[in-house]
Amino acid sequence: MTLKTPEEYVESLRKLKPNMYISDEKVSDITTHPLLKPAVNTLKLSYELAMKPEYEDLMTAKSQLTGEKVNRFNHICRSCQDLIKKMDMVRMCSQHTTCILRCTGGEALNAFSIATYEIDQKRGTDYYKRFNEFAKNFQENDLTAAQGMTDVRGDRSLKPHQQPDPDMYLRVVDERSDGIVVRGAKAHISGAPVMHEIFVMPSRTMRKEDRDFAVAFVVPSDAKGLTHVVNTTFREEGKEDDHPFSSKYSSAESFLFFDDVFIPEERVFMCGEHEFSRRLVLAFSTPHRHSRLACSSGITDILTGASALAAEYNGIQNVSHIRDKINELLLMSESYYALGISAATLASKTASGTYMPNILHTNVGKVMTARGLHEAIRLTQDVAGGLVQTVPSSKTYQNKALAERLDKYLKAKDTVPTQHRVRLFRFLQDLTTYGWAGFWLVVSAVGAGSPYGAKLIASREVDLEEKKKLIKRLCGIQE
Amino acid sequence: MTLKTPEEYVESLRKLKPNMYISDEKVSDITTHPLLKPAVNTLKLSYELAMKPEYEDLMTAKSQLTGEKVNRFNHICRSCQDLIKKMDMVRMCSQHTTCILRCTGGEALNAFSIATYEIDQKRGTDYYKRFNEFAKNFQENDLTAAQGMTDVRGDRSLKPHQQPDPDMYLRVVDERSDGIVVRGAKAHISGAPVMHEIFVMPSRTMRKEDRDFAVAFVVPSDAKGLTHVVNTTFREEGKEDDHPFSSKYSSAESFLFFDDVFIPEERVFMCGEHEFSRRLVLAFSTPHRHSRLACSSGITDILTGASALAAEYNGIQNVSHIRDKINELLLMSESYYALGISAATLASKTASGTYMPNILHTNVGKVMTARGLHEAIRLTQDVAGGLVQTVPSSKTYQNKALAERLDKYLKAKDTVPTQHRVRLFRFLQDLTTYGWAGFWLVVSAVGAGSPYGAKLIASREVDLEEKKKLIKRLCGIQE
Amino acid sequence: MTLKTPEEYVESLRKLKPNMYISDEKVSDITTHPLLKPAVNTLKLSYELAMKPEYEDLMTAKSQLTGEKVNRFNHICRSCQDLIKKMDMVRMCSQHTTCILRCTGGEALNAFSIATYEIDQKRGTDYYKRFNEFAKNFQENDLTAAQGMTDVRGDRSLKPHQQPDPDMYLRVVDERSDGIVVRGAKAHISGAPVMHEIFVMPSRTMRKEDRDFAVAFVVPSDAKGLTHVVNTTFREEGKEDDHPFSSKYSSAESFLFFDDVFIPEERVFMCGEHEFSRRLVLAFSTPHRHSRLACSSGITDILTGASALAAEYNGIQNVSHIRDKINELLLMSESYYALGISAATLASKTASGTYMPNILHTNVGKVMTARGLHEAIRLTQDVAGGLVQTVPSSKTYQNKALAERLDKYLKAKDTVPTQHRVRLFRFLQDLTTYGWAGFWLVVSAVGAGSPYGAKLIASREVDLEEKKKLIKRLCGIQE
Amino acid sequence: MTLKTPEEYVESLRKLKPNMYISDEKVSDITTHPLLKPAVNTLKLSYELAMKPEYEDLMTAKSQLTGEKVNRFNHICRSCQDLIKKMDMVRMCSQHTTCILRCTGGEALNAFSIATYEIDQKRGTDYYKRFNEFAKNFQENDLTAAQGMTDVRGDRSLKPHQQPDPDMYLRVVDERSDGIVVRGAKAHISGAPVMHEIFVMPSRTMRKEDRDFAVAFVVPSDAKGLTHVVNTTFREEGKEDDHPFSSKYSSAESFLFFDDVFIPEERVFMCGEHEFSRRLVLAFSTPHRHSRLACSSGITDILTGASALAAEYNGIQNVSHIRDKINELLLMSESYYALGISAATLASKTASGTYMPNILHTNVGKVMTARGLHEAIRLTQDVAGGLVQTVPSSKTYQNKALAERLDKYLKAKDTVPTQHRVRLFRFLQDLTTYGWAGFWLVVSAVGAGSPYGAKLIASREVDLEEKKKLIKRLCGIQE
Repeated sequence: MTLKTPEEYVESLRKLKPNMYISDEKVSDITTHPLLKPAVNTLKLSYELAMKPEYEDLMTAKSQLTGEKVNRFNHICRSCQDLIKKMDMVRMCSQHTTCILRCTGGEALNAFSIATYEIDQKRGTDYYKRFNEFAKNFQENDLTAAQGMTDVRGDRSLKPHQQPDPDMYLRVVDERSDGIVVRGAKAHISGAPVMHEIFVMPSRTMRKEDRDFAVAFVVPSDAKGLTHVVNTTFREEGKEDDHPFSSKYSSAESFLFFDDVFIPEERVFMCGEHEFSRRLVLAFSTPHRHSRLACSSGITDILTGASALAAEYNGIQNVSHIRDKINELLLMSESYYALGISAATLASKTASGTYMPNILHTNVGKVMTARGLHEAIRLTQDVAGGLVQTVPSSKTYQNKALAERLDKYLKAKDTVPTQHRVRLFRFLQDLTTYGWAGFWLVVSAVGAGSPYGAKLIASREVDLEEKKKLIKRLCGIQE
Repeated sequence: MTLKTPEEYVESLRKLKPNMYISDEKVSDITTHPLLKPAVNTLKLSYELAMKPEYEDLMTAKSQLTGEKVNRFNHICRSCQDLIKKMDMVRMCSQHTTCILRCTGGEALNAFSIATYEIDQKRGTDYYKRFNEFAKNFQENDLTAAQGMTDVRGDRSLKPHQQPDPDMYLRVVDERSDGIVVRGAKAHISGAPVMHEIFVMPSRTMRKEDRDFAVAFVVPSDAKGLTHVVNTTFREEGKEDDHPFSSKYSSAESFLFFDDVFIPEERVFMCGEHEFSRRLVLAFSTPHRHSRLACSSGITDILTGASALAAEYNGIQNVSHIRDKINELLLMSESYYALGISAATLASKTASGTYMPNILHTNVGKVMTARGLHEAIRLTQDVAGGLVQTVPSSKTYQNKALAERLDKYLKAKDTVPTQHRVRLFRFLQDLTTYGWAGFWLVVSAVGAGSPYGAKLIASREVDLEEKKKLIKRLCGIQE
Repeated sequence: MTLKTPEEYVESLRKLKPNMYISDEKVSDITTHPLLKPAVNTLKLSYELAMKPEYEDLMTAKSQLTGEKVNRFNHICRSCQDLIKKMDMVRMCSQHTTCILRCTGGEALNAFSIATYEIDQKRGTDYYKRFNEFAKNFQENDLTAAQGMTDVRGDRSLKPHQQPDPDMYLRVVDERSDGIVVRGAKAHISGAPVMHEIFVMPSRTMRKEDRDFAVAFVVPSDAKGLTHVVNTTFREEGKEDDHPFSSKYSSAESFLFFDDVFIPEERVFMCGEHEFSRRLVLAFSTPHRHSRLACSSGITDILTGASALAAEYNGIQNVSHIRDKINELLLMSESYYALGISAATLASKTASGTYMPNILHTNVGKVMTARGLHEAIRLTQDVAGGLVQTVPSSKTYQNKALAERLDKYLKAKDTVPTQHRVRLFRFLQDLTTYGWAGFWLVVSAVGAGSPYGAKLIASREVDLEEKKKLIKRLCGIQE
Repeated sequence: MTLKTPEEYVESLRKLKPNMYISDEKVSDITTHPLLKPAVNTLKLSYELAMKPEYEDLMTAKSQLTGEKVNRFNHICRSCQDLIKKMDMVRMCSQHTTCILRCTGGEALNAFSIATYEIDQKRGTDYYKRFNEFAKNFQENDLTAAQGMTDVRGDRSLKPHQQPDPDMYLRVVDERSDGIVVRGAKAHISGAPVMHEIFVMPSRTMRKEDRDFAVAFVVPSDAKGLTHVVNTTFREEGKEDDHPFSSKYSSAESFLFFDDVFIPEERVFMCGEHEFSRRLVLAFSTPHRHSRLACSSGITDILTGASALAAEYNGIQNVSHIRDKINELLLMSESYYALGISAATLASKTASGTYMPNILHTNVGKVMTARGLHEAIRLTQDVAGGLVQTVPSSKTYQNKALAERLDKYLKAKDTVPTQHRVRLFRFLQDLTTYGWAGFWLVVSAVGAGSPYGAKLIASREVDLEEKKKLIKRLCGIQE
């Protein structure tokens, strides 16, 4: 049995001693910092749900590495069915927490499983074995990992080796007999503050002249020389009641600085094999965007339910245009999910035996989700109305005279206790305006890569020349 | 071996003696009427493709009724894989002909397979056996059938039995020992002029008081008392060269009048079991809309390829916004297809053992396609430019002086023969303005039911109360 | 009194002897050719309406050149109010005919009034005087003119002087003491077959090396060496009843070939002043796109009314989503009109005293209209339903047996004669599928220039640096 | 000279003694409360700008009541030009502060000027005189007023008099010889905490049985019996640097409770004249939505400039799809503005001589803005990228070691100081995620009424029957 209990997860986090800062202060204990609590809770939930019998099938899988039951977030997908199950797991988790934060670790596992095998095939290296040993241990200890991808990029019109400051992309500064030394930074690393490990890989295709930047490895979150500057979605300590959702479950990201960090050989999975950088990036971004279809669906499910409940509480649930807006939300949610199911069904088996979701449908879906959330929030606010913005803070209710008046005047239908309505609108405020929305609007617009980039990747998967030939046949054009 | 050759299909059509009119004239031979030729060609192609070894897997299937290989259009789907194969077949056929016309017959077979079984279970009737006998013969003879669904509806604010003229919905006017007599009309019946049989079923849910209208059966296209008033997409005899596509492949629809037509008992599959009318409608509309996802994808593939070729011929294929528009077309096409794959993957096995595509995803997809084609045509025209409208007619080229000038001035890139460009733009004109576009814009907007209806059906598949409960849990609202 | 009667207009057309072809046949009399009739009717209507007392204010204006009342289509706008009146006139005319065809002549008058004045100021030429003399005569004789703008462009990645064949842009091939000789072609020239004159100007900015292409002039429609190859929207002679609208009013375009046509000096308004080519193009495209806002509004008014009437005839006018779709159409129509009113209100007075609509708002509006019509047609078809496609042809009704059945089964509400419904749906078919739609979909997508180009022109009118400075101020960024 | 200095405004606020709460604490001095500061600043800016010579024409107007120069926000519009000037003023102010907060007072002045005159005409009352005296004094003292409109509405499926608790709509509970006593609440009253006066009017059309609710008046912000429960956009005291915009300029709203407040006769402008309630609502909502077109334009200007600056700072300003997104923002901004200009140009002169913006175009524009802001924010985030979410807080920089690393790694182009980039992204974060965005997303979606309601009002302005008649004429349908 390799599943950690939620408490064991928290305990394991407590033992970490990262060089981590929130604002200008060093974090002494990850598990007790009030602004990190929502992120710890979120990860913890991934352990809790795996313990529940009703979610066993969804939340756990049998590992082909260990032969044991592992948390499905740490599972390497070996079939279309595995990918469908992952979709269902992520959607379900998102209905609980929006972003469960644990996806990226598993996606990195899948990416390295695919890419290290292919590097070895061509280069005669032994990355795949190294990686599998790491992965086995990772699964057995039910660990979590963040994914360090985005470089800071300096002047974006220049390639890595052209940058005036060579550290603008993370790079190898020394190669030793027992490992490598790396320097640079990785930005916006979701969940990194509450994870055990950090996977690192290039953020773009590297050419020969950029081979020093073609490096990938895994590093403990509290490695020497590694600094976290943390951003949290929940930012208003003491105002938990006014942020009922994001104070309980939400994200935290690290800005990671690597000050000549040593990576022992057995944790290095690519070092200079630049011609595989594109493949590695794709092997990660594809399952990652695939999971985004599931969580976008789960989040839109929440907005759908919240809209429907707001309509009911406001007494307008039978108004035609209100119903239609709720139906539009339903359609959005299902369209993302369907793209994910299709990408799983049409997944490809790579040389390693690991399955990669269909690249085309994954990226078509990604473009849809990037266009959808702002619109979904608009529809939700349209259904719910202005109270989303002005619902009185919980502290207001501590003044009895005010509380009395608010209770009188915020009452809607007789059958709905006023406090239920107030709770719902505070939840809606958290979700669509302050707090959670701040995080998700950006994540939705540009997280997991820009929609324009996704569109390009999708288009590369389509053989346009074949389509032109079809037209020539239909037109009777012979060349 | 139960596959007809294309020639056998044409020969079998020739033997039909329907009471069929185009304009005010009676059609003496379906297979030689110039305005019906594109529809005959289209159906014929479904036989041709089934003969080709490279399409054997896609175009044929092993029937569970006959144990033999049958044209997949006549196959009753008994697995998710069957539904995926159908998607792929229809998309491929649509890339050849846009609408292959043959889908509805197979969809009706699937619908009756599902619904007759369920009626029998509840009512103790023997429709399923009757139907299977019909279906077996249908498969063995590789026949085709149209689907008669849409009633003329008279005053749409009234139910069938409330109509001043009771014939506004097709109905049973007499029940005899050996069969029934029906009266009424069915409108916009795609492909009916070139089919062997017509399936007929109600167009809406029927209540008890409308039981006379809850009737379903199959009738030969040339049955006594049945009149076809035909509409064709290709309408300009003699101008085949200016309609290079729709003059070769396109649709024809019948307005069908039933003047007290006798239907023998063994061809009646529902008669008065009104409580199953909704189920039968759904059992047809679901696979039908599912196929629409495939053909919408195939058609958008054609528009994509034609846009790409026009961009190349015009010398603007590397212009950024042009490429982006072509990519948008790609995304549309794949999104429809993905919804279809998802609906197939999540299909449900009905009591009869026949598989029904996922109703929710099918209808989500249907709404997407209904919103997409007009936009796809706009993008195509935007890429191609004004010549789509003004490309000179083929007859113009018969005047040598004009032809010489046109050749000089319509030349674009040196590497593209001017006549190739002219052919492409005539094809684009046919496809996006005159001819084919006329048919498809409407089909896309309202064919296979209105998008609003599809949205409602989709929304009924979602348990909104469950989603509200989720929100209550997230908000901590306890009742 | 300078207004021609409609009959005088037709008579004046009859006297023209252009070298004009429809298909491979030469047109002997413009006014009697059945396929040109809808275009003649359309122009003629511009004369008829000007005679009606109720439209006098809208259809006529006092010319600053002649001091007399002239048809407003021939008026040079000297105030914001003039531009608003033009908007109202064009919208009203479009409600009668969709495209009244006469706008371009007046827009060219305005363009030359602006640009010739400015050339003279800089170059010391006397184009403005020449032009005014021509314009005065044009107004006094109540003439019409097409606008020859679009060059055939050959390889679009090359500039005019780089083309292998130098005739891909119309150019001066000889300069004589009394005039110039021009060669080349102009494509898609709306209304040219039924106009007295053709204005010609460059289709793009010309650089110094392209000075031979920087030529502008006016030429009689039947000038020696000028050939028209005509495309008509109405194409099915004998099927007027099935195209009730486009057979009565619709467009015709010429492909114009200039085989060394001599243009006398007094009709030349630019010859080599390449640095003014951009200005001239803008001085035309701006009022032209401004008129497009008015006609797009008028056309959408027609689609709105037709949708509303179809909903009423079908008995669904009170259904909520149907009403909403009609309201969306209303909004589209008014948004185009509003952009036009704003562009008129914020018009600029040029050096010549002639007013140019606001370039920014005109082009913002143009982008909106280009995105709108396909969507408007989709909404209309969604409201109206499948009969749009399958409404039986008029000839079908000549068969009494069929007519009887059609009358029975196409009846909807008791209060609406079935023939009224049939007429409406034939009109809808003409307008949204066959016939008119073919023309307008393309015109809407790319007529008056591509929407991408319009967006660029709009963006050039906005001082982005000023907006960045604003942000720096708001952020407290000091440089 | 009737203009207050900014300091005089603040001083006048300080003298108010409202019964006002933020959270559970009573506000002792409006002008010094840290969370109210941004709102005080905003209003104050309306006084500052009016002092600046360069804005004199825009910010001031000559009053027809006093004959003196007044702040244009307090001006009653007596011409189309007045309305255009208002548009320009509001757009300019919004470019400084997004929402200047002062519009509603002036809109209420215009509304009462129109409606009181019309009530008097019909009812023989003397409201117009009363109102003008109030307005004169209001202008002379350069006061500010909020607009109390939205009732809490209780069960929305019930009319006012049907509510179980009669106070769900504000109502008259007593009529005395010298005035009236009112009870109820008004929700989401923008700017109310920092205004001198509150205008109150019904939020909907009142029928005869609801005459007690048909009441309108003006009341000092610190009237006896009036309680403010305040919501502020800026909520994180001490984190001004992380909310560089909303901590300086932003909104505050009051939830207003009227506990039997006495309103002296001379301040009552409607009392029971229910048949004018719809007119009064429209006379307010029209100029209010008209102003919203201007501020939506100004806000989108800010997003446009911020996107352009982010693109420049990131070094991607020449990337084609980035430029296109910025251009789309430009188009949005101008389309709102154009609708406002058109509504001003087509304004109607009411019986009182006061001008009302065109209702149709105002509401068409309102629907556009409600659909636009979420999309504009999406585009801005897409252009700017993930740093919008994760830009380190200002406090982080107080740790020198962190500051050094951040300076190194957040550097982009050599020519842009890193701190400028950081400031810009903090501004973008404030504007599109936390803080300001929270307020504006909701305001945009449902502020100034729901877009659906606006669409209905727009549709009522269009004579659909006239449009149907047009179609009948075009189809030749005679009745």
